[in-house]
Amino acid sequence: MDDDILIIDDDEQVHDSAIQSWKVLIVDDESEVHRITKVTLSQFRFDGKSITFLHAYSASEARDILKQETDIALVLLDVVMETDDAGLQVVRYIREQLGNQSVRIVLRTGQPGQAPEDDVVESYDINDYKDKTELTSQKLRTLIRASLRSYRDICSLQRNKRGLEKVIQASKGIFEKTALDTFVEGALEQLTALLELEDTTIYNIKHAYELKNTELEMLHSTASDKTETDDLQQHPILQLAIKDKTNIYQESEVVIYCKNPRHNLIFHIEGTQQLSEVDTHLLNLFTENIVVALENIRLNEVIEDNQKEIMYRLGEVVESRSKESGSHVKRVANYTALLARLNGMDNEQVETLKQASPLHDIGKVGIPDAVLNKPAKLDAGEWTIMQTHAKLGYDMLYDSDIPLLQTGAAIAMYHHEKWDGTGYPNGLRGEDIPIEGRLTALADVFDALGSRRCYKEPWGIDSIMELINSESGKHFDPKLVQILNENLDLFLEIKQKYVD
Amino acid sequence: MDDDILIIDDDEQVHDSAIQSWKVLIVDDESEVHRITKVTLSQFRFDGKSITFLHAYSASEARDILKQETDIALVLLDVVMETDDAGLQVVRYIREQLGNQSVRIVLRTGQPGQAPEDDVVESYDINDYKDKTELTSQKLRTLIRASLRSYRDICSLQRNKRGLEKVIQASKGIFEKTALDTFVEGALEQLTALLELEDTTIYNIKHAYELKNTELEMLHSTASDKTETDDLQQHPILQLAIKDKTNIYQESEVVIYCKNPRHNLIFHIEGTQQLSEVDTHLLNLFTENIVVALENIRLNEVIEDNQKEIMYRLGEVVESRSKESGSHVKRVANYTALLARLNGMDNEQVETLKQASPLHDIGKVGIPDAVLNKPAKLDAGEWTIMQTHAKLGYDMLYDSDIPLLQTGAAIAMYHHEKWDGTGYPNGLRGEDIPIEGRLTALADVFDALGSRRCYKEPWGIDSIMELINSESGKHFDPKLVQILNENLDLFLEIKQKYVD
Repeated sequence: MDDDILIIDDDEQVHDSAIQSWKVLIVDDESEVHRITKVTLSQFRFDGKSITFLHAYSASEARDILKQETDIALVLLDVVMETDDAGLQVVRYIREQLGNQSVRIVLRTGQPGQAPEDDVVESYDINDYKDKTELTSQKLRTLIRASLRSYRDICSLQRNKRGLEKVIQASKGIFEKTALDTFVEGALEQLTALLELEDTTIYNIKHAYELKNTELEMLHSTASDKTETDDLQQHPILQLAIKDKTNIYQESEVVIYCKNPRHNLIFHIEGTQQLSEVDTHLLNLFTENIVVALENIRLNEVIEDNQKEIMYRLGEVVESRSKESGSHVKRVANYTALLARLNGMDNEQVETLKQASPLHDIGKVGIPDAVLNKPAKLDAGEWTIMQTHAKLGYDMLYDSDIPLLQTGAAIAMYHHEKWDGTGYPNGLRGEDIPIEGRLTALADVFDALGSRRCYKEPWGIDSIMELINSESGKHFDPKLVQILNENLDLFLEIKQKYVD
Repeated sequence: MDDDILIIDDDEQVHDSAIQSWKVLIVDDESEVHRITKVTLSQFRFDGKSITFLHAYSASEARDILKQETDIALVLLDVVMETDDAGLQVVRYIREQLGNQSVRIVLRTGQPGQAPEDDVVESYDINDYKDKTELTSQKLRTLIRASLRSYRDICSLQRNKRGLEKVIQASKGIFEKTALDTFVEGALEQLTALLELEDTTIYNIKHAYELKNTELEMLHSTASDKTETDDLQQHPILQLAIKDKTNIYQESEVVIYCKNPRHNLIFHIEGTQQLSEVDTHLLNLFTENIVVALENIRLNEVIEDNQKEIMYRLGEVVESRSKESGSHVKRVANYTALLARLNGMDNEQVETLKQASPLHDIGKVGIPDAVLNKPAKLDAGEWTIMQTHAKLGYDMLYDSDIPLLQTGAAIAMYHHEKWDGTGYPNGLRGEDIPIEGRLTALADVFDALGSRRCYKEPWGIDSIMELINSESGKHFDPKLVQILNENLDLFLEIKQKYVD
């Protein structure tokens, strides 16, 4: 960790426009004290900023102001007002009720006898104790300067602490994401939250890109104007980050660059205010965590890709015996997923169905070559054997604890049931047929009709749809047939993509 | 975030034994000033601690002391010593050279004319400026008390900041772990680092357990004494954490409790010093991250378990055609992994081989029933067909980008090669046969001999080993045969576990 980040010299603070001026609260029941203090300090400046005075003439007025104004730097506090210890009660109110540890408190008393100095300084969390008589204008200036300096340093430490706590929160937020899209959205939100430590700063233009070859692809944006978005991609700061493969902090703009062997993410945030050194330190810390989280997501993606491919291979190995093409399982998987999505199923269900779909004919492994590959119509006995593949597939998978294989078992069992109850193995009817079976039945037949088989040539799309429509409510779930008709172009895109 | 954690009252600080007394450095070329200051403050206590004085009689002595002693709370600093501005140079040295922002600096000058107050207070990062004449013993006590209070608050903020930075580091450390064992070890290390914020605290007894049913299983320990370890499991604080399912902080002991649907982890750390509120706050923050990281590990484990099971199913489906038992692929996978591990391969290689092993006979899907299931010796033509299963299996897998399936392709291709060059399909010899093939060849034959097949009864272990030893250097890699002989009991354990 770089502790230099906390070394703040006066020059640097000039740029910290978060504080426009220093708020000093004068609490005294004599208006002359207010007047003299104000006159004495009228030309005073610290860190290039002047003082804004707030005035309270009693402890109760002081309490009201302190409750409202949370960024008061210094309270010059009379002791004896409504009561002999009214000022001391204000000290307790500030530290204990308001929990404000940063504001500096200087007691100014005209009657030192009322409040013995040692007792007061020991018992109350104040930062200085002065007799009004000793406060020459020179001493007042020194007091104010030392107090503001102390306030500034404490605020800086507290801001740093809040920033670090935000980094911890933000990191937790992104490590909870396991998919790229939610991760990107979350990271952008957390980055912005991190930058909005000061209420006066607003970061309102945010984009996340993925760099693919040399093209920036927009992953997420909060910009309302699309034209503006397009222009931003040519922004020199983005090009610089890509070239140097590093974060760029420039005036009020931030580009966060994160790379791993699979992803090249770039977050671009534009704000209204120059970044401080503390901001960039926190952003660098957070970027390290983004990189770790992104690597975890990559590893997840690799494992999931592997699983998908293994499932396809499993399906293909089985199909290879019936001499069906390798692309059949991929097309059926994609048709099934598309039907499921258009039918309103959620992403997880769709993904599970897609991955499990290649298992629909796994039971064919148990069907003899003579039946499976007979280049003519099966006789009644052969047909009975052929039908056993549904239950055989189910038996191979149903006892698994894995939802994916359980879905596979259901698909294997029910993909030859028919809506009108004339299917096999159980002759189920209508919605008694599990949705996994109804979806795969339509996807499988839609693909089989369009493919070359040992017993037939591929059909044209018109003939396919004619048959399928005529079987709506007989073989197929009519709702799914309707979905297929209404979105035929999407299904034909899949057919095109996974051509044999 | 709970900001209350920073509200530190004087009572609480009494327990903070990290600071034994407050170090105050007096820098003055008049020894009388040293003497009077010391006498005046001899009875002084702040937060229950007295003052330890350090004495420097010149700026150069002051620099030496300040360089050595990094925990000085306050410097009472004369201005005119070796030179007219010797004291001012010390201020620059402290803030700029040493980068020490926490020590409070009070200038005490006897010749105010030498250093005009406004200029000095503005230009130097000091915390107060006093004429020696105005410092009565009352004013000195007030000054010291206010300065120590300010020092204490700044130290507390800085310690908090360091703690938060450690939480960030520690979290990054654990999120980089993707396996349970390295995660547990890492979390224990990071927890200890987090607790060792104060150099005076040493946490030296550390254990990590997994709660399985009602039993605590030790996952990791740094305790040297095993007996002590056993006793600790009955420790009431562990029982309390388990009962309440929460972290427990008790005197100098910490129990961190993390739970998800698969894991129930308990970290137990014993130290030498009572935990502060800041410590428990940081530990709670870190615990939240441990829980998120542990959940990520669980999700990984689920995906990997799924992958393993899918690979087994894939193997089993294929074997089901040759009527081999479902346990054959599991036994061969475990024999292969054990041989690989004993042969010195690393964990990742062993795991890949284990998962890919079920694919060794995947090419048999392409072998006709008549050949595959012939209950008699194959004739020459049939044997030629049978042998194609090695290359067929390879062809099904070799074009995958997934290392797991590439390993599967190699296993399928080479598991019928023989050490003396008489195997198939390529007649490779000795170490020209890829290790995947040599390992699976031995594992497959070891299992086949011990199993019932359509053409033979299972053999006893003595006959199996007699044949295998006679084939050492002919069919099998002699080094692997030696490993099998030397560790036969481990292989028989697997045979026992995955009995048909």
